[in-house]
Amino acid sequence: MTFIQNAWYVAAQSRDVSAQTPLARWVIDQPLVLFRDGKGAPFALADTCPHRMAPLSMGVLSDGCIQCPYHGLRFDSAGACINNPHGDGRIPDRAKVRSYPAVEKYGVIWVWMGAADSADPAVVPHFPFMDDSEFYVAMGEMVIDGNYQLENDNILDLSHIEFVHPMFSSPAVSAGVVSHEIDGEIVWSRRDIHNDEHPPQFIREVFHVPEGPVDRWLYVSWQAPSYLSLEAGGMAVGAAREQAMTSMQVHWFTPETHQRTRYYYGNSLPKFVGPEGQAIVNSSCAALRPPFEFEDKPLVEAQQMRIGDRNLLHENPIVLNIDAAGMAARRLIQLRLEQEAQSLGDAQI
Amino acid sequence: MTFIQNAWYVAAQSRDVSAQTPLARWVIDQPLVLFRDGKGAPFALADTCPHRMAPLSMGVLSDGCIQCPYHGLRFDSAGACINNPHGDGRIPDRAKVRSYPAVEKYGVIWVWMGAADSADPAVVPHFPFMDDSEFYVAMGEMVIDGNYQLENDNILDLSHIEFVHPMFSSPAVSAGVVSHEIDGEIVWSRRDIHNDEHPPQFIREVFHVPEGPVDRWLYVSWQAPSYLSLEAGGMAVGAAREQAMTSMQVHWFTPETHQRTRYYYGNSLPKFVGPEGQAIVNSSCAALRPPFEFEDKPLVEAQQMRIGDRNLLHENPIVLNIDAAGMAARRLIQLRLEQEAQSLGDAQI
Amino acid sequence: MTFIQNAWYVAAQSRDVSAQTPLARWVIDQPLVLFRDGKGAPFALADTCPHRMAPLSMGVLSDGCIQCPYHGLRFDSAGACINNPHGDGRIPDRAKVRSYPAVEKYGVIWVWMGAADSADPAVVPHFPFMDDSEFYVAMGEMVIDGNYQLENDNILDLSHIEFVHPMFSSPAVSAGVVSHEIDGEIVWSRRDIHNDEHPPQFIREVFHVPEGPVDRWLYVSWQAPSYLSLEAGGMAVGAAREQAMTSMQVHWFTPETHQRTRYYYGNSLPKFVGPEGQAIVNSSCAALRPPFEFEDKPLVEAQQMRIGDRNLLHENPIVLNIDAAGMAARRLIQLRLEQEAQSLGDAQI
Repeated sequence: MTFIQNAWYVAAQSRDVSAQTPLARWVIDQPLVLFRDGKGAPFALADTCPHRMAPLSMGVLSDGCIQCPYHGLRFDSAGACINNPHGDGRIPDRAKVRSYPAVEKYGVIWVWMGAADSADPAVVPHFPFMDDSEFYVAMGEMVIDGNYQLENDNILDLSHIEFVHPMFSSPAVSAGVVSHEIDGEIVWSRRDIHNDEHPPQFIREVFHVPEGPVDRWLYVSWQAPSYLSLEAGGMAVGAAREQAMTSMQVHWFTPETHQRTRYYYGNSLPKFVGPEGQAIVNSSCAALRPPFEFEDKPLVEAQQMRIGDRNLLHENPIVLNIDAAGMAARRLIQLRLEQEAQSLGDAQI
Repeated sequence: MTFIQNAWYVAAQSRDVSAQTPLARWVIDQPLVLFRDGKGAPFALADTCPHRMAPLSMGVLSDGCIQCPYHGLRFDSAGACINNPHGDGRIPDRAKVRSYPAVEKYGVIWVWMGAADSADPAVVPHFPFMDDSEFYVAMGEMVIDGNYQLENDNILDLSHIEFVHPMFSSPAVSAGVVSHEIDGEIVWSRRDIHNDEHPPQFIREVFHVPEGPVDRWLYVSWQAPSYLSLEAGGMAVGAAREQAMTSMQVHWFTPETHQRTRYYYGNSLPKFVGPEGQAIVNSSCAALRPPFEFEDKPLVEAQQMRIGDRNLLHENPIVLNIDAAGMAARRLIQLRLEQEAQSLGDAQI
Repeated sequence: MTFIQNAWYVAAQSRDVSAQTPLARWVIDQPLVLFRDGKGAPFALADTCPHRMAPLSMGVLSDGCIQCPYHGLRFDSAGACINNPHGDGRIPDRAKVRSYPAVEKYGVIWVWMGAADSADPAVVPHFPFMDDSEFYVAMGEMVIDGNYQLENDNILDLSHIEFVHPMFSSPAVSAGVVSHEIDGEIVWSRRDIHNDEHPPQFIREVFHVPEGPVDRWLYVSWQAPSYLSLEAGGMAVGAAREQAMTSMQVHWFTPETHQRTRYYYGNSLPKFVGPEGQAIVNSSCAALRPPFEFEDKPLVEAQQMRIGDRNLLHENPIVLNIDAAGMAARRLIQLRLEQEAQSLGDAQI
């Protein structure tokens, strides 16, 4: 098994990366050290000193450079060794560590895991509603002992709600129409719930429909390798769609290893809702955690225990209509992996 | 390494299997879910949903059917999917899980791990003294981090008592005559202790010999894969054997994996001893646990640590006369494994 | 990977080996049991009974013999079975365990891991300053989750002090001259620090230089596989070297497995310093532990995490001048391994 290389992955939340304390993180089986320079720009380097393999993240940061904890080799933010405190101070040619292009956007640090010269910040996925200049934004994270594709499946499959999250469900949810659509490299998964006469109380509150039947929907969009957004909307039956309240979430899954994933989840409200907006998104974000942690996570981890180091699809599972979106995502990932293997082969000829 | 398939294995104690809460157990490297229907009949299914490999044991039981925790596929007690709550509700042909024949007897649920059509409840091993309609019965269980054959060896070897369980020993025990016998598919291991002038005090109490020298004996019978009974008896020297008191135990070892075994131990008294019998067997059963847990278990687990994933007999161990019964059992297991491999080969031709 | 066999390894501190309680230890991937006979002589046997692989170290010691905990086979200090308490008591020919030559010296038990007939106590490495008839000696030990060669590297590289142990450093230390020398099978690593005007206060106390600039030095000698001594000295600039105070340490690393090492560290003072000498060496030895445990150990274990089951040198690390001594030691180890493989090949022809 392998991972898509040519992609921006979320390596950490912005708030956890500083110019004072290096942060160690794994992304697609590679150890990284994250830090900022004096101006606050984020950087990501391979977290292994080329001298004796000590983790640079155990070292000392100063002036946007990191010093190996063991023998003091100092590396600048581009990964070049700029000081050898020993002997004649000559710096060996190979004294450098891989530098990963890093971009800060939407409250997180994105790192490019492919060849550095192919990194294009313009292709960081677009989640404009996570832009904190225009939105109140909140975010949480969690480590899952499971493969990231199980998490893609989980969010793209809107049918599991009534079984895994009964609190969010109602008879009308079960009757909701599930559909999916493949739009180029985007996979959409949608659940439209019409005429819900007994929605959970929080639905009435979030979408401002104090009484009467409700039309509501969940629209998920996915793009490779594992970036999803979820729009939840609701309105009185018969109201105009364009005036409905909607709530936006992100679900970003960073593979740390084949069997471990760091899950970033977030939500937002437009700033025009007024200054109480930040408290509301904070509270909503906190409310998301218990179902993710106590309902989804144990299931995904139990799946992983069963699957082990095998590939779910090689186990010949039965496929239901609700898997369509997830299967489409898996196919797009597979296609990207084959393209990368192909171009690697071409490059080696 | 492999396991005998065509055998009834103890999967759980009856008291742990209900119509309300599914029970997850491993038997010969296979995950099972155990439950009962509304009439109390026990069932065992493969504990992996064929859709996404979620463990069914995390799901919900109702009306003797189990619903997958993830997407609500519902399986009846025969393992057939009887409800797909999604889309048009069509049930895919392969939407079934393996059902293991299950029989309740002697206070436990026996599951047949071979082909279902070869399951014969009449060949559940006979332990009439564990029948609670005629006996007061008590049972305990314990998980051992060791291969089940090390446990077979342990019980079939009655010589270890004086070294591992000094409390049960005396000089006459060491002088006792060890013998074994192979009677078809049964292996007997016997230790006859004559004229024990200083038996442990509990021996006098259990066998009602308040004073004077004692003749006592331990007779173990084994049958594949790992079902043993142990008769302990004692009487005044010269008394009539047929009037001696005896105490019966079972030792049943269920391989969970190659290196983990679930150990069920039990004992009984005939109901004619009167209503205090239940309390006596309960107390005797509780008294068995400390030597099993604190004397045998650490040794078996230490053997397993040394053996790892190798086969003890391939390590060329020295063999003593006391190993005769255990070696006979190992040979019978090996023979059964070869027969099963042979008939599997025949079936494939 | 393999280990040098023809070497004396430290198996335990003398104080931990007794005639009452067997001690289990691993040396170069082999389990040993250590004990003494009634006269106090130390012995080392393979810690696996040849009958059923039970660890002899769980058994009972008496009269310098060890009895298997499981079935009572009794082995003398040469590893010969001298009692089979079963059946006719005949002792099978193969009922013996490997005996490892053991020598007690310098407060530890040395065991020879090569062929017993090649064991020569005269080649136990010489550390005369650890002889407690002439010196006050103290010793501590610690288990490191890392390969022993990483520890060799650590001590042979005197440059890491200023980065890993800032408490022991000063600007003059950084300016100190590092050198190394290969003297047959001994590797020397030296750091000479001239004219240190601001040494740490404890340097002034240890070396009795209450004021003024100090000349000081650290001289490490290594021999295969992992025996190091360290001389630390200091004196007023311009004083006579032969009158300088020096402090001696040992660093002995016993590979338990490829990824686990038992670290013995010790120090001494000549008895002529007077009766308070023992308290001083005890206190110095205790003071060594925190930097070893909280500064070196986490780094070595982090290196090991990165290296896993690979060989550091096969990872193509960059090499600095400060690695010269460590690399020389690694080459000498490699040479010894090749010689042993060669003579093993010769023996098999």
